[in-house]
Amino acid sequence: MFEKILVPYDGSHGAERALKKAVDMARLCNAHLVVLTVYRHHSMLEASLSMVRGSVERGGNLDNEMREAAREAANYAKRLVKEQGHENVSAFVKAGQPARTIIATGKEKGCDLIVVGSRGLGATEGYLLGSVSHKVTGLANCPVLVV
Amino acid sequence: MFEKILVPYDGSHGAERALKKAVDMARLCNAHLVVLTVYRHHSMLEASLSMVRGSVERGGNLDNEMREAAREAANYAKRLVKEQGHENVSAFVKAGQPARTIIATGKEKGCDLIVVGSRGLGATEGYLLGSVSHKVTGLANCPVLVV
Repeated sequence: MFEKILVPYDGSHGAERALKKAVDMARLCNAHLVVLTVYRHHSMLEASLSMVRGSVERGGNLDNEMREAAREAANYAKRLVKEQGHENVSAFVKAGQPARTIIATGKEKGCDLIVVGSRGLGATEGYLLGSVSHKVTGLANCPVLVV
Repeated sequence: MFEKILVPYDGSHGAERALKKAVDMARLCNAHLVVLTVYRHHSMLEASLSMVRGSVERGGNLDNEMREAAREAANYAKRLVKEQGHENVSAFVKAGQPARTIIATGKEKGCDLIVVGSRGLGATEGYLLGSVSHKVTGLANCPVLVV
């Protein structure tokens, strides 16, 4: 039913729940699983923290650190997938705005399903779907499973 | 992976797309498919159309007409499902607010997946996820597939 499933992973509880469902789905469909961890560019962080001014060099280091942290998260997720017995998995990191980067990567890799975590709030808390999940479900050109 | 799948059906293009995916998923999982068509009570319509005042009798007839139209839509959807070769399907109509009625019915029937149509807008149109889809994805206690 689905051949290539994208699952964004940022290390949150919601993302871990999404990862588990994505593995179940990938096994059911015999699909390739693409794990994606998105990180923000230093320049984007700087824009949101305009009080903090680093040197160009410091900015470069911060980018490297964020890329490294993202790579660790993506590799950790990939190990979790393999531990659940699904070997058909690849992991990527990308810099950018989360929702748009998830959508663009899904298109680029030819994914036909995206699995995202909601914020995990039930009826008691009202319908506060995470803004990334909301944007992804609204922008995607393929089905989105919100977990 | 899923045993009982709820698919709200209101006759829109988005709902038909959702219905097709729900059938695919139900066949893949050998699951029972529950079709639900929600209609609004006359009193709710009246509240939103406060200029229009009908007699109690007229209100009752309007309720009946809306229930009948909903039942026709639900039965039509059920026939579509069977035509796609999936016999394990039931269809219901309920009165109420769409999103909350969908969620309540999902709980009542023990569904472990809800399949809803998005408004079908792509990236060009921005992320205008239909408000019912948005509420359902945010309120549900089970995974939601937005199609």
